[in-house]
Amino acid sequence: MPAIAGVRLATAEAGIRYRGRTDVLYVALDEGTEIAGVFTRSRCPSAAVDWCRANLASGRARILVCNSGNANAFTGLKGRDAARLTAEVAASAAGCRPEEVFLASTGVIGEPLDARKFEGVLADCAGRAAPHGWLEAARAIMTTDTFPKVATRSIRIGETSVTINGMAKGAGMIAPDMATMLSFVFTDAAIAAPLLQDLLAEGAATSFNCTTVDGDTSTSDTLLLFATGQAGGARIESRDDPRLAAFRDALDDLLKDLAQQVARDGEGARKFVTVEVGGAESDASAHRIAMSIANSPLVKTAIAGEDANWGRVVMAVGKAGEPADRDRLSIWFGGIRVATDGARDPDYDEEEASAVMKKDGVTVRVDLGLGDGRATVWTCDLTKAYVEINGDYRS
Amino acid sequence: MPAIAGVRLATAEAGIRYRGRTDVLYVALDEGTEIAGVFTRSRCPSAAVDWCRANLASGRARILVCNSGNANAFTGLKGRDAARLTAEVAASAAGCRPEEVFLASTGVIGEPLDARKFEGVLADCAGRAAPHGWLEAARAIMTTDTFPKVATRSIRIGETSVTINGMAKGAGMIAPDMATMLSFVFTDAAIAAPLLQDLLAEGAATSFNCTTVDGDTSTSDTLLLFATGQAGGARIESRDDPRLAAFRDALDDLLKDLAQQVARDGEGARKFVTVEVGGAESDASAHRIAMSIANSPLVKTAIAGEDANWGRVVMAVGKAGEPADRDRLSIWFGGIRVATDGARDPDYDEEEASAVMKKDGVTVRVDLGLGDGRATVWTCDLTKAYVEINGDYRS
Repeated sequence: MPAIAGVRLATAEAGIRYRGRTDVLYVALDEGTEIAGVFTRSRCPSAAVDWCRANLASGRARILVCNSGNANAFTGLKGRDAARLTAEVAASAAGCRPEEVFLASTGVIGEPLDARKFEGVLADCAGRAAPHGWLEAARAIMTTDTFPKVATRSIRIGETSVTINGMAKGAGMIAPDMATMLSFVFTDAAIAAPLLQDLLAEGAATSFNCTTVDGDTSTSDTLLLFATGQAGGARIESRDDPRLAAFRDALDDLLKDLAQQVARDGEGARKFVTVEVGGAESDASAHRIAMSIANSPLVKTAIAGEDANWGRVVMAVGKAGEPADRDRLSIWFGGIRVATDGARDPDYDEEEASAVMKKDGVTVRVDLGLGDGRATVWTCDLTKAYVEINGDYRS
Repeated sequence: MPAIAGVRLATAEAGIRYRGRTDVLYVALDEGTEIAGVFTRSRCPSAAVDWCRANLASGRARILVCNSGNANAFTGLKGRDAARLTAEVAASAAGCRPEEVFLASTGVIGEPLDARKFEGVLADCAGRAAPHGWLEAARAIMTTDTFPKVATRSIRIGETSVTINGMAKGAGMIAPDMATMLSFVFTDAAIAAPLLQDLLAEGAATSFNCTTVDGDTSTSDTLLLFATGQAGGARIESRDDPRLAAFRDALDDLLKDLAQQVARDGEGARKFVTVEVGGAESDASAHRIAMSIANSPLVKTAIAGEDANWGRVVMAVGKAGEPADRDRLSIWFGGIRVATDGARDPDYDEEEASAVMKKDGVTVRVDLGLGDGRATVWTCDLTKAYVEINGDYRS
């Protein structure tokens, strides 16, 4: 991961919940950094989400603080106080206003977060933050993740070389409705905050919002994009700026990369699953059908069992509540068409289908035969390990 | 289970899929039997569901044939032919019209059903059908069920003694949208078919439609109610008939009993879970929130792990998309209030909550503090056994 001019990182052990590992990420952002963010649509958002939403309108950011181990969600007034105290501690260490500090917390819901644990830690982080250490940063925000999730893209915007670095965490409670559990993206491009916000919301729609592990939407979903502007070149302020296209493509591509890493690291997952739906009445309809398939426990357990059980795909199409004509439906696993025209494909070979199911990556493709609507979403299989991980998470 | 005048049962081994167990239920209904039915809202319904829907309008039934092992769903034109052939075979053995034969099939989706297997079997069933054998009947329609599900109620309608017997099957792919997997209810009451239809649809709304095992709606959900009228007494034809109330209460109660048995026998289930939501803006809103909780894999795995993880209940309330105010929310496990006013209950004792979670039946109660809307739904925990059963069902 390359450095991003204007971005410095530090991680620390605050002992919030875990022992012997880092649980705090501190990111210092140079003056002039612009910010965009999208958040969970949960009606029960975390205190950190409330804090970020309240301060996003200024479009300016100087610090990001993220802790793992405690989500500071459903913690009432105490939770609000903890968020404010964290921002104040960080701001005083860095000499900025608390409103320029953005927060994210992930971990157990409903446990009070003791923000005093950040006091010495954040001042220390401010002193030693450095341009490198992206993998360590991604590791500090992990909970049940099994690997740190990072991605980078380098592009030219007009005459200027620009870099985008991103990280994400999340493995369970993943059905982002606006963003994923937590993802932070940094660039040295100079792009105005309102425009940044549009790009981010659009990018989330085709990346994190196309990801599901278990259909359970988190209280804490937060996707933040920071642009330091230090790559140089004139600030991009309009959608019509011809330099924007390259940035947008790179951003979308990076967000998709991170979103797919989240699905791949789904709790207990052994297989990465791509669900492609075509021939729907609209893209939105295709998306809802794809999500119905990707969230079906029966489809996901069949994939875990390496069973080309396309009957369950039929079921998931049928229950989605979207326009569908049973007798025009075709289904593929990998490249193998297993069903067509409302019945089993007469030429389908169970051996071939079985071979496809044994792979680490499985693609389920459905054609509805109704229109041009298309969508792709990513998920993982549902294994006994998911049940094990989640039957014993709090204790 | 008592006999119902006008109803005779037989079971048989047709060797459709299983070996060494019965897989066909044959029910002979005396002339004059009226029928009501509600079916899956899946866009990909089974051939048997199509057949029943097409013939329901007459309000008359003479035979019910149900097989397990093969759902005759997504079987195209062949599936339609198989349904028709089954009805013709049954009708010729009993001397009625094929349109008076009602069908249900449950088991694997997408495999052609060889209806010729019914030929000798149904004629034989017609010859030996008898008023008793209700448990054997319920056993013949089981798939992954671990016990046969039956219920009976006896009431007075005016001067007449009336009996209602019901059976159900279903353990997975249970999120009935109109009815459950399969349930058949029989009564000797004399009630006109259109009225019977209203009662059944209303009864399904507070019973089977309040049940979920895995959120996956079947292609084959079928709930049929047969009324032979042989108890005597004048036929009830109007909603205003004062005799109707007792029947309706008994029917609703019996449907709830069967629906709860289905949830209790959810695939891999070790715990029966009741989710009660109150204080919502409307009953419909309460129902959607209750279903969001009951379908959450994270809530269900926590219950399997005997973990009073109310943070996940907060999550499931938040993701439901219904009006909710985080800071007015209260949550109970059993009688223990674990959260109130948007945060952990200060008086809550983890030991007490743990004791509640160890029981075979767990009640999750949520009060939203917004209005008078209420709903109760039933489900089960999500265990490794669910994953095991469904990773290896077809093979």
